[in-house]
Amino acid sequence: MDFSSKLLENAVNEMSQLPGIGKRTALRLVLHLLKQPKEHTEFLANALQKMREDIKFCKSCHNISDVDICEICVNPNRNHHIICVVEDIRDVMAIENTGQFRGIYHVLGGKISPIDGIGPSQLNITSLVEKVKSGNVQEIIFALSSTMEGDTTNFYIYKQIKDTNVITSSIARGISVGDELEYADEVTLGRSIINRIPFENSIKNN
Amino acid sequence: MDFSSKLLENAVNEMSQLPGIGKRTALRLVLHLLKQPKEHTEFLANALQKMREDIKFCKSCHNISDVDICEICVNPNRNHHIICVVEDIRDVMAIENTGQFRGIYHVLGGKISPIDGIGPSQLNITSLVEKVKSGNVQEIIFALSSTMEGDTTNFYIYKQIKDTNVITSSIARGISVGDELEYADEVTLGRSIINRIPFENSIKNN
Repeated sequence: MDFSSKLLENAVNEMSQLPGIGKRTALRLVLHLLKQPKEHTEFLANALQKMREDIKFCKSCHNISDVDICEICVNPNRNHHIICVVEDIRDVMAIENTGQFRGIYHVLGGKISPIDGIGPSQLNITSLVEKVKSGNVQEIIFALSSTMEGDTTNFYIYKQIKDTNVITSSIARGISVGDELEYADEVTLGRSIINRIPFENSIKNN
Repeated sequence: MDFSSKLLENAVNEMSQLPGIGKRTALRLVLHLLKQPKEHTEFLANALQKMREDIKFCKSCHNISDVDICEICVNPNRNHHIICVVEDIRDVMAIENTGQFRGIYHVLGGKISPIDGIGPSQLNITSLVEKVKSGNVQEIIFALSSTMEGDTTNFYIYKQIKDTNVITSSIARGISVGDELEYADEVTLGRSIINRIPFENSIKNN
């Protein structure tokens, strides 16, 4: 693209560094900002910079938090002996929205992915293993997405804690509630048969 | 969405003010910035703010420009008697890319759109009419998109300059080169028949 302004070109180039934002979309967004009052751009730029500079992570579960220990980790009404292992804050938000989990979380910050250059040392794995070895944990629930990277990460952690007394579990994979069987992929359908549950349990959850 | 951090929530809220960016996408983009080195966010924020603060518009054609009079308007090799009227910089870039136009532009900055509260006074129409009345213009080419707003804007300008000696033209509407007739919409196909051109001209352009 041949811009008539370096300022515009810079803004578009920086914007198009974001994932899923191409040059055309970036130009559309930047031109939108130009049509808005100056304050809009200022608020956006400040919010991003302040977030990036001052963001903190909970010292216990590593979730994003404005305080040292997050709301969930300080809540005495939650079961601190059950830890749900997730990839990032989006998973915490999704599980919290269900209202079905009263334990606490451990946020890994990613999955082991050699292709992307992410090894175990870049994730919050050591602190999880330490928590388990301290003896205060009853159950670890693996709730990573079931991709190759997710499975690898689960297994890497599992190997380090399997000799402790902790119970390990994985969230159930199966047909989504309301989905038609015929459209489900084979692997999911296959797993949902192997991992079938007592009928009484399936009624209980409704 | 229930965020565990006000800083994160602010950043997501500001990001989701951009057109076509919902809360989920905004969260994904912001989390991406969190995983990148701090400089990335700084560069983005600075580029946006600097652009919004310092951007200038060409005093002649109103296109975005870092100098008082833009490159196109100062170029002596361009025909300053033919003015192509467009909505914004994206149209200038698109037409420049074709390499088919050697005149100059006049950027309106939008289209008349009562629904969006945009009247003629918010667009760069007066300066265009003045240019025409100064007598230095031979031809005005209307190149706004052919929507109701585009047609209204064209007609509004046309009424003010129709008593001068200027030639007014509109870019050709028709079937895209390479498109199948059967998939063309009726209005476009109809216009392409009414506004047919001598066969020799159609060969010349290939």
